[in-house]
Amino acid sequence: MDENVFRNELIRDILTRYRRIWALNHAESVLGWDMEVYMPKEGITERSVAQGELAVLSHELLLSPSFVDLVNKSKRIENLNEFERGVVRVLDRSIRIAKAFPPEFVKELAETRSKATSVWNEAKRKDDYKLFEPWLDKIIELSRKAADYLGYDEYPYDALLDLYEEGLRVRDLETIFNNLENSLRPLIKKVLEESWAPSKHPLEKERYDVEKMKIANVEILKILGFPIGLRSRIDISPHPFTTEFGIKDVRITTRYEGYDFRRSLLAAIHEFGHALYELQQDERFMFTPIAGGVSLGIHESQSRFWENIIGRSKEFTRLIYPILSKYLPFLKNYSVEEIYKYFNIVRPDLIRVEADEVTYNLHIILRYRLEKLMINEGVKAKELPDLWNEEMERLLGIRPKTYREGILQDIHWAHGTIGYFPTYSLGTLLAVQIRAHIFKDIPDMYELVLKGNFTPIKEWLKDKIHRYGSVYPPKVLIAKSLGEALNPEYFIAYIREKYLGSK
Amino acid sequence: MDENVFRNELIRDILTRYRRIWALNHAESVLGWDMEVYMPKEGITERSVAQGELAVLSHELLLSPSFVDLVNKSKRIENLNEFERGVVRVLDRSIRIAKAFPPEFVKELAETRSKATSVWNEAKRKDDYKLFEPWLDKIIELSRKAADYLGYDEYPYDALLDLYEEGLRVRDLETIFNNLENSLRPLIKKVLEESWAPSKHPLEKERYDVEKMKIANVEILKILGFPIGLRSRIDISPHPFTTEFGIKDVRITTRYEGYDFRRSLLAAIHEFGHALYELQQDERFMFTPIAGGVSLGIHESQSRFWENIIGRSKEFTRLIYPILSKYLPFLKNYSVEEIYKYFNIVRPDLIRVEADEVTYNLHIILRYRLEKLMINEGVKAKELPDLWNEEMERLLGIRPKTYREGILQDIHWAHGTIGYFPTYSLGTLLAVQIRAHIFKDIPDMYELVLKGNFTPIKEWLKDKIHRYGSVYPPKVLIAKSLGEALNPEYFIAYIREKYLGSK
Repeated sequence: MDENVFRNELIRDILTRYRRIWALNHAESVLGWDMEVYMPKEGITERSVAQGELAVLSHELLLSPSFVDLVNKSKRIENLNEFERGVVRVLDRSIRIAKAFPPEFVKELAETRSKATSVWNEAKRKDDYKLFEPWLDKIIELSRKAADYLGYDEYPYDALLDLYEEGLRVRDLETIFNNLENSLRPLIKKVLEESWAPSKHPLEKERYDVEKMKIANVEILKILGFPIGLRSRIDISPHPFTTEFGIKDVRITTRYEGYDFRRSLLAAIHEFGHALYELQQDERFMFTPIAGGVSLGIHESQSRFWENIIGRSKEFTRLIYPILSKYLPFLKNYSVEEIYKYFNIVRPDLIRVEADEVTYNLHIILRYRLEKLMINEGVKAKELPDLWNEEMERLLGIRPKTYREGILQDIHWAHGTIGYFPTYSLGTLLAVQIRAHIFKDIPDMYELVLKGNFTPIKEWLKDKIHRYGSVYPPKVLIAKSLGEALNPEYFIAYIREKYLGSK
Repeated sequence: MDENVFRNELIRDILTRYRRIWALNHAESVLGWDMEVYMPKEGITERSVAQGELAVLSHELLLSPSFVDLVNKSKRIENLNEFERGVVRVLDRSIRIAKAFPPEFVKELAETRSKATSVWNEAKRKDDYKLFEPWLDKIIELSRKAADYLGYDEYPYDALLDLYEEGLRVRDLETIFNNLENSLRPLIKKVLEESWAPSKHPLEKERYDVEKMKIANVEILKILGFPIGLRSRIDISPHPFTTEFGIKDVRITTRYEGYDFRRSLLAAIHEFGHALYELQQDERFMFTPIAGGVSLGIHESQSRFWENIIGRSKEFTRLIYPILSKYLPFLKNYSVEEIYKYFNIVRPDLIRVEADEVTYNLHIILRYRLEKLMINEGVKAKELPDLWNEEMERLLGIRPKTYREGILQDIHWAHGTIGYFPTYSLGTLLAVQIRAHIFKDIPDMYELVLKGNFTPIKEWLKDKIHRYGSVYPPKVLIAKSLGEALNPEYFIAYIREKYLGSK
C-alpha cells in the first residue's frame, strides 16, 4: 500500500475540511474525559455550556452545505479505493443521521435525557418506579419518533439498532438470540449443577489496599503492552471507560472499591481491549473519519476478548499470580487454581454488570425483548416491570424483589439509548468466535499467554481487525476477517468446553 | 446592580454569538492544561493539530464579517453601562489585534517561534549562543514587523508592550524604571551590607519527601481558602502555571524538585494569587469577554501579593510552621525565625527566576532596555550578549560566565514574546502598592494573617480589583481602585522597611 492512501483530489479536499470537525471531536473527548476524572465539582456549569456549544458547532460544520455537497459529489466517483470509499460511507452516514432530526427534536431529546437521567437517579435511590415511569414513556415516544425520522425497511427498532451498530437489524438478532437462548438455558442449568466453577468465593470479600492495587493493575497492563506514559494513561472513575483522543493518545479508567479485586482488574483489562483497538489503527488514517473502531459491537468484541478470553484464562491467572500476590498479601492463602475459580464464578445474578460470562447474554436478551416491545409494539412503561420480572424468572430463574435490582438497574433507557444493549452481546459472542479463529493461526495461543508473549495475538487482532478502522461496515469486516458471519455456536461450544470440559 | 448587567439588545446578541468563541477558548485551555500535566508523550502529534485547527476556527469566528459588524455597531451606541462598554472595548481590541496580522505573517511567526524555541533549547544545553543568534535576529525582525502591523504613536516597542499590557507605553516605563533603578541600586547595596536577611541558608540544601510536601502544600492552600475539589485543583508541572476554564474551574500547578522546599511552596502560593483573581470574578460576567483578569501586569500583582506580601511575611511563616514541621521533619532543627530568613534570602543572582524580591526588578530592567534597543534602535542579536553582560554587571555587580546563565536563560524571546517582561515588574511593584492601600482599610492585616483569617484581605481584593474582571483597562482600574497611578516609591519604602527596619 502507498504511504498516502487518499489519492483522489476530492477526497483529499474533504479530508482537509474534515480536520476541523476532527479537532472539535478531539476537544469534546478531552473535555469529557476531564469531566469524569479530574474536573472540580462546580466546573460542571461552564463545562456543560462549552460542550453544548462545541457540539452545535461541529454539527453545523458537518452539515454545512458546501461540505455536504463535496460528500455527495464523492458518492458519484468511480474508481475510489477501499479507504476512500470508507471515508465516503462514514461521512455520508454521519450526515444522514445528523440531518434526520429537526433541531427542535434534538433539543427536546437532549432535555428529556437530562431530566430523565436525574429522575432515574432519584427513582433508583428511592426504589420508586412510579417516579421514572412517565419519563420512560417519554423516552419511548421520542425513540419511536427518532426511528421514524431515521427511516427503516422492516421494524422501527431497526432504525435504532443501526444507530449503534451499522447494519444491525431485528432479523439478525432474532436468529442469533433465539438460537442462543435455546442452547444457553439448558447449558446454564448443567453448568450450575456439574461445573468446577463455584457460585461464590471467599475472595469476593477480601479487602485490598487501593494504592497497591493501582500498582498491580499498572504492572499487569504493562505485561499486556499498554503504552502507559507514551500513548496512554490509566485513571480512576466509578464507571470504567476508554476514550481516544486520536491514535496516539488512548486513555482508560478503572474503579477501586477496596474489595473483590477482580472487579478492578478485569475492568482494567476490559478497557485495555477497547484501547488496543484504537491504538492499533493504521496511522495513515490519522485525522480522518475512518480512524477508530467501526462499531460498538466490534469494539465490545475486543474488550471482551481481553477480559474473558485472556483475562479469565487459567494461563493468564498463572502469569499474573506473582504480581497479584506481591501487592495483595491475602493471596498467600490462595492457590492459582483458587484465583482462577474466583475469576470464573458462575451465578445467576439480578444485576447485569455483575453477571459472569455464562449468564451475561441472557440479561441482554431480556432487554432486547423489552426494547422491541416498546418500539415495535407500543408497550408502555407501566407494563414493563412485570414483563421484566417474568422474563428474568423465565431466563435465569430469579426474580427481583426491588425495582433497583430490576428494571431500574441500568442508566441506558434514562439516557435515551434504546437499541444499545444488543451490541454488548454481539461483542461477547464475537470475542469467542475470534478466539476460535486465532487458534487456527496460533494453536499455542495459551502457551504464549502463559509466557506473557502477547505480541502474536495483538498482531493477529491488528492484522484482521484493528488496522481497518472504520473502512468496512461491521458485517463486511467480520466476513472479510473471519470468512463467515457472526455465529453464536462458537460461544456455546466455548462455554461447554470451559465449564464442563466438553461434556 | 441588576441580576443581568447586560441590558442592551445588541450587546446581548453579541454575547450570544460570543459564547461559541468562549467555548473554543475553554476547550483550548483544557487541551493546554492536559498537555502540560497529563498527556502521554506521543499525544503531542494529534494535540498540536487539534490546537491549530481550534485556534484558526476561533480566529475565524472572531473576524467573521457579521460579528465584526455587530461589534462596530455597538461602538456607536450611547448610554451603554460600564459593563457593556467593557464588552465592546475588549472585543474591539481583540478584533483589532486579530485583524492586524496578515495570515502569511501569522504562519511565519508561528513557524519561527516553534523552530526558535527548539533551537534555543539546544543552544542553552550546549551553551552555544551562535546557534540561537540567527533565530533571535529573525524574531527581532518579525517583532518589529508586528509593531508596524499593529501601529504606534511614539515607538514601535509601544505596540508590543500594549499586546501584553493594554495601554502600557515606553514613556510610562522610562519614568518607572529610571526612578526605580536610581533608588534601588544604592538600597540593594545597603541591604546586602546591613540587613538581617541572609545571602544563603542551610535550608536551601535540605531534601524533602515529595509526597509529604504535596500534602503540606494542599493544607496550606486550604488555609488560604483555595477551593480544591470544588472549584480548583493543584497538579504538578516543571514550570508552575495557572489556567482558568471559567470562573468555577481554576487550576494551578507547582513543582517538586525534592530540595529547597520554598521553591515548591512559594510557587504554589504565587499561582494561588493568580487563581484567586479568576475565582473572585463577578459571576454575572460568566461566558463573556470581560470575565477574567484584565492584563498580565494586574494578574502578576495578585500572584506577587500572595507570594511576597503574604507568603514571605513573618506572620504567615508562623501560621504555617506547624504544617511545615509536621511534613518536613528536618525543620525541627529550625525556628520560625530561621524559616522566615530562609524565605527572604537576598542575593544578587544571575538567574531571574531565582531572584529575591529585592533584586528581581533589576533583571526586568535589563531585559526591558535590551528589548527597547532591539525594537526601537535596530540592535542585532550579535551585539546582545555583551550588552547583557555589561548591564548585568552595572545593575547587580555580577557577570555571567556562560550564555546559559546570561542571555540564553529565558524562553521568552525564543517564544517571540518581546514586550512581555515588563509586566513582571509592574506586578511586583503594584503588589506592594496594594499592600499599602489594604493597610489603610485593614490596619491589622498581619494580625489576621497570623490568625489564618484571610477573608477580609480576599474580600478587599475582590471588591477593589477582582470583581471588575476586564471591565476597565488596567490604568483605569488602578486609578479607580487605588485613587492614584502605579508608583514605585511604595516598593522602595517597603524594601527599606522590611529589610532595613526603616533605616
